[in-house]
Amino acid sequence: MDSFFKVKRPQEVYQIIDAFEALGKETVSTAHAVGRVLSGDLTSPEDLPGFARSTMDGYAVRSKDTYGASESLPALLEASGEVFMGQCPRDAVGPGRAVRISTGGMLPEGADAVVMIEYCHFLDESTLEVSRSVSPLENVIEPGDDFRKGAGVLAGGHALRPQDVGLLAGLGLSELPVYRKPVVALISTGDEIVPVDVLPGPGRVRDINRYTLDAFCRRAGAEPVYAGLCPDDFEPLKDMVEHAMETADTVWISGGSSVGTRDLTLKVFDTLPDFELLVHGISISPGKPTIIGRCGGRPIVGLPGHVASALVVADVFLSRLLDRLSGRRHTGPWRRHEVTATIGRNVESTNGREDYVRVRLVEGPDGLVAEPVFGKSGLISILVASHGLVRVDMNTEGLYEGQQVRVWIPGA
Amino acid sequence: MDSFFKVKRPQEVYQIIDAFEALGKETVSTAHAVGRVLSGDLTSPEDLPGFARSTMDGYAVRSKDTYGASESLPALLEASGEVFMGQCPRDAVGPGRAVRISTGGMLPEGADAVVMIEYCHFLDESTLEVSRSVSPLENVIEPGDDFRKGAGVLAGGHALRPQDVGLLAGLGLSELPVYRKPVVALISTGDEIVPVDVLPGPGRVRDINRYTLDAFCRRAGAEPVYAGLCPDDFEPLKDMVEHAMETADTVWISGGSSVGTRDLTLKVFDTLPDFELLVHGISISPGKPTIIGRCGGRPIVGLPGHVASALVVADVFLSRLLDRLSGRRHTGPWRRHEVTATIGRNVESTNGREDYVRVRLVEGPDGLVAEPVFGKSGLISILVASHGLVRVDMNTEGLYEGQQVRVWIPGA
Repeated sequence: MDSFFKVKRPQEVYQIIDAFEALGKETVSTAHAVGRVLSGDLTSPEDLPGFARSTMDGYAVRSKDTYGASESLPALLEASGEVFMGQCPRDAVGPGRAVRISTGGMLPEGADAVVMIEYCHFLDESTLEVSRSVSPLENVIEPGDDFRKGAGVLAGGHALRPQDVGLLAGLGLSELPVYRKPVVALISTGDEIVPVDVLPGPGRVRDINRYTLDAFCRRAGAEPVYAGLCPDDFEPLKDMVEHAMETADTVWISGGSSVGTRDLTLKVFDTLPDFELLVHGISISPGKPTIIGRCGGRPIVGLPGHVASALVVADVFLSRLLDRLSGRRHTGPWRRHEVTATIGRNVESTNGREDYVRVRLVEGPDGLVAEPVFGKSGLISILVASHGLVRVDMNTEGLYEGQQVRVWIPGA
Repeated sequence: MDSFFKVKRPQEVYQIIDAFEALGKETVSTAHAVGRVLSGDLTSPEDLPGFARSTMDGYAVRSKDTYGASESLPALLEASGEVFMGQCPRDAVGPGRAVRISTGGMLPEGADAVVMIEYCHFLDESTLEVSRSVSPLENVIEPGDDFRKGAGVLAGGHALRPQDVGLLAGLGLSELPVYRKPVVALISTGDEIVPVDVLPGPGRVRDINRYTLDAFCRRAGAEPVYAGLCPDDFEPLKDMVEHAMETADTVWISGGSSVGTRDLTLKVFDTLPDFELLVHGISISPGKPTIIGRCGGRPIVGLPGHVASALVVADVFLSRLLDRLSGRRHTGPWRRHEVTATIGRNVESTNGREDYVRVRLVEGPDGLVAEPVFGKSGLISILVASHGLVRVDMNTEGLYEGQQVRVWIPGA
C-alpha cells in the first residue's frame, strides 16, 4: 500500500514539470527560425512602414481638394507625373493636383490621401474627374502604423509562425534570440532488446521504443541523441546514464517491459549525485510506472517499457516537459488539436485514475464517431490503427456509447 | 466584366490542385522518416511478435491445470526455473508445472497461458498455490498477433507518426519508401523590394514575402529554395522563372504589391513553353488576384503581393498543393486544427465570395471568443496579432456578434 500513496495525480505531475526552467539561449538565423521559441521580448528597431505608403492603385491627392465630390458633382484635378515603385516621388502634390500612384508606392509630399482608380476618369490628357471624396489618410498607411520604433512586436516564449518570421525579417532582423532546442538522450534497456538492424533471436525483439521516442522528439522540435542500448545490469546502465547526463538536457530511459528493468532504472537513478525523486508512479493508465526525477537541475525520466504506455506518457507529460525546457509559453486552450466525436461503444474506467483510450475516427451519418481500438495488452498494432486519444476523467466511471467526447490528436 | 467570369470558386481551385500528381519516390532512413509520406503500401516482412510472449509478470502454465481454481480451492503446481528475458526458455512446462516469467518473456514449450503474480503464492519452496484459473492464451500474445507476415501494415499516402516509425523499425525496416519532398522555388518581384539585410531607401521595403513563404514551406515539410529577387522587368523575370523551373517542383512568385507586377507575372508565364493557365483569380478575400498554371506538368503560382493575402492563399490552397505533390492522402475532416468560439463582433461579407477573417482568440467567461483583428489594408501587424482564420461562406452575408464559428489555426 506504500506505493499506492506515492502515486501522483496528473495535475501534480504537471506542476512538477512546470518547475523546470527553460534552457539557455542562442541566436538563430531568421531564415531558420520557424518553430523556434523567442527567448526575449522583441521591440521594433525602426518604424514600419518607414514611409507613408498607398494601399491602393489610384491618385495621390490633397484630400480637401476632393471634399464634396460625387458622381453628379465630381472634383476636377490636374494630373501629372507618376510615383514609381521603390522610388522617392520626384514632385510634390500641390493644391488641385493629382499624381498617379500604385499600391505600395510612397506618398508624395503635399498629398495626404489616395483616390482609388475606380473613381477617377480623364476628361482630357491632364484633367482628372474624381467622383468621390477621400478623408485625410484614406488609403494610406503612415510611418509606424504597423510598429513604431521601440514598440513591442513579439514576446519571449512565443513560438514563431511563418508570419512572425516574415515580419521580423521585414524589420531587418537577420538573427533572432531563441531558446536552445532540448537535447534528449534516449537509453533503451532490457536483455530482450536488439538493435533494429539485427534479426532478433528467439525471445528477442527490436528496439521499437528508441525509434518511437526519437521520432516523437524530432516532431516536437527537440534533438534526440541515442545514448545506447543496455542490458539489465546495474553497472553498464549506471555508466550509460552518467555519460548521457554529461551532454544532454534530459535523459529518458525506456525499453524493457519487465518489472526487473523498472526496478533497475530507479536503483541507478538513486546512485546519481544530487538525484531527487519527484514522481514514482502516476495515476494514469496506461503509463502508471513512470519515474521522474531531477539530477543537477535536469529532468531524468524512466518510462514504462511497453511502447503504447511510453507514448501516452510522452504525449501527456513529456511534450509539456519539452515545451518547458524550450521556453514555450502555453498560449491558450486552443493549442491542442482536438475534435468532437461520439464514442462508438461503452468504455469502462477505474475511478481515481485518468484513463487514455485509443480511438479510431470514422465519419458517420451524424458526424465523427470515435471507435475505441482495443486489443491485448502488449500489442503495437493498436497504436498504428488509432487516430487519437480520449481522456477519461479521474472522477468518471467510464464512457457510454453515444456520449460526446473530445478526441485529442497529439502532434497533429 | 470579362475577368469576373474568369474568377474561379475555391471548390473549383481545389479540384484543379487535386489533379496534380505526386512527385517521384525515394528511400529514407527510418530514423529520419517522421512526417514523411509513404509512397507505397507496406506489408509485414515477418510475424510480429515473432514468438509467443507473456504480457504479464507471473507464471507460465498449462491452462487446464488451473481450471476450477479459486481462492477457496486453489490449484497446486510445482514451480521451478525461470524464463530469462531475451532468452529461449531452457525447460518445457510439463503437466502440473509452472515456470516464472516476466512481461515480454518467451512462453516455454508446453505452456499456453500465464497466471499473474498477484494470484500466486508459495506454500513451500516449490509448491505454488494458484488462486485463479486462466484460459488458453490468457496473458499471452501469439506470433503474428500484431501483424502476420505479408499482412498490410500501412498504406501509401500515410504521413508517418512516431508510433508508425517505431513499428516499422520494429519490423526490421531500416529504410522506407517515401515520396520526395517538394522543392519550392520562391521568386520575389517588385521594384520596391530590397533584401532583408539591406536598409531600405525611401519608398522601399524589405522582402517580407520571401521569408514568410520560406517558413511556410519549411513548416509544411517542403524544401524552399530562394530563386531570387527581381525588379519589375520582363526579361530578367522570365530568365529567373525559366531557371527556377529547371530544378524546382513548383515555382511561386510573389512580392510586388502593384498591379503592374501582377500583370508582368502573367505575361512571363504566358511565354513559357507548354504553359497552361488554370486559375486567374479566385473568389476569395483576401487573395483574389492569384494565378495558378501548369508548365511541363508542374504547378506555377503567382501570389498576391501583400503578405497577408499571400499567406491566406498559401494556407488555403498551397498547403493542399504541397500535400498533393508530396503524396499525402487527406485522411479525414479531423486533420485541420480548428476550435469553436463565438465571434466577438459583427463581420460584414460579400455574397458570392469566400472571406477569411483573421481573429484573435480570447478566453471569456462562457468559452473562447474570436475577436476579429481589423486594420488598414496593407498592415502586417494584423497577421502577427491574430491566432487563426474564420471562413465566411460564399452564401452568407456576414457573421453576427455572438454567433458560433469555427476558427482554423493553420499549421498548428
